[in-house]
Amino acid sequence: MSTSKIQIIEAGRDAEAAPSQPSSAAGYKVFNRIIDWITNDRLQLLNITERINEIVRKSGIRDGIVHLQSLHTTSSVFINEWQDALLQDVKNFFEQIVQREQYYRHNDPEYSDCERKNADSHMRGMLMGQTLCLQVRNASVLLGTWQSIIFAEFDGPRSRSLAVQVSGV
Amino acid sequence: MSTSKIQIIEAGRDAEAAPSQPSSAAGYKVFNRIIDWITNDRLQLLNITERINEIVRKSGIRDGIVHLQSLHTTSSVFINEWQDALLQDVKNFFEQIVQREQYYRHNDPEYSDCERKNADSHMRGMLMGQTLCLQVRNASVLLGTWQSIIFAEFDGPRSRSLAVQVSGV
Amino acid sequence: MSTSKIQIIEAGRDAEAAPSQPSSAAGYKVFNRIIDWITNDRLQLLNITERINEIVRKSGIRDGIVHLQSLHTTSSVFINEWQDALLQDVKNFFEQIVQREQYYRHNDPEYSDCERKNADSHMRGMLMGQTLCLQVRNASVLLGTWQSIIFAEFDGPRSRSLAVQVSGV
Repeated sequence: MSTSKIQIIEAGRDAEAAPSQPSSAAGYKVFNRIIDWITNDRLQLLNITERINEIVRKSGIRDGIVHLQSLHTTSSVFINEWQDALLQDVKNFFEQIVQREQYYRHNDPEYSDCERKNADSHMRGMLMGQTLCLQVRNASVLLGTWQSIIFAEFDGPRSRSLAVQVSGV
Repeated sequence: MSTSKIQIIEAGRDAEAAPSQPSSAAGYKVFNRIIDWITNDRLQLLNITERINEIVRKSGIRDGIVHLQSLHTTSSVFINEWQDALLQDVKNFFEQIVQREQYYRHNDPEYSDCERKNADSHMRGMLMGQTLCLQVRNASVLLGTWQSIIFAEFDGPRSRSLAVQVSGV
Repeated sequence: MSTSKIQIIEAGRDAEAAPSQPSSAAGYKVFNRIIDWITNDRLQLLNITERINEIVRKSGIRDGIVHLQSLHTTSSVFINEWQDALLQDVKNFFEQIVQREQYYRHNDPEYSDCERKNADSHMRGMLMGQTLCLQVRNASVLLGTWQSIIFAEFDGPRSRSLAVQVSGV
């Protein structure tokens, strides 16, 4: 479940939006990347902390903001402690707070052409949010001792993309 | 329910905070706007994606951040797919996760002078959040294929304001 | 429960990351601070609006972003109205939406070495989020009439730190 086990490709496909030289204004810079991976389970948690720190280091930005945005409604990015026992509780929490089995119009062929029957995934993604903004200080992501950056897959297995933007000086 | 049907006024009332020339520092710019509309229902969802993109285009900023902030505690801004069937599920979800009819001190004249009896609206707004920060790339808001920006009214009908700030280069 | 009653120390301990002179690029500045306090209850709400505005004023930044990040997974920062009756409802809501007494692996010595039995605190912190980004306009934090910035302690009493970053022009 660690990032070392998942396949992550740093994409060059936003080449137009993110030229190899970052945008800048007399020291102020914006550094854009998109990272991709393939998830294995319907509900899966990935620790992406190290990947984000690597991008921040590459950006050359010392003080500013790193913004993360999952490009998929049925996923999320948030902070929590990365501990095996707790991660199981987190998954159970998502299954409790948003029931998969109840009636949803989005899953009903009479109202919707969605074949994935993933209304629960949409609610979980919406509740937890697809964006996360963190401070960059001293050329790395500011995090408390027990804080890890977690990507949550709510409708896997699928190919997923996360847009990372570092801005500052 | 589309933005074309709601009344939106681009306000000039933050004239002091947002002069017609954006703040800038050798290329870095901050572009401030407030947009207003009037909602029709107690619980209503509005697709504001196009309005935000229009402001981003006007800002002249190519790479950076667009920050959205509803100025009302009983409302919210978040991302989800804009599909009729799903929007009905989303409304049901808010009604399930925060009950309107249970006892709240905020609705009890013995403890509170609030006449709107809108404690549920406060909980829904707090849970979903009043702010949303998205990346600007290539002079437009970065969004995945199925991602729309949604404003949620939890205590309408009312007049509502959303502060939009675009910053970057 | 007001900030005037809690002990807040503006920390100099991030001296390396935040030198006394803010980082800048021809007018663009990043101003970093960490503020600390000690909470009194397991579940406690603090109104930190004035403290944040004070830091924004000190930063000298007129237009931009203020980013708040609690450095602890079992806490949160969000917006709501600061009204006594409503604050009691907010606490009840957290106790309802995440039960403390149910089974969690994180609280089970067979799976976890956490002695605080605070799985519920982790869920509440994760659900509400540890970060909040607000607009700075006219040299102060942009907030609607009824919006206050609230720090939520979910596992006190403890010493807590909040990283505040103001960036812009």
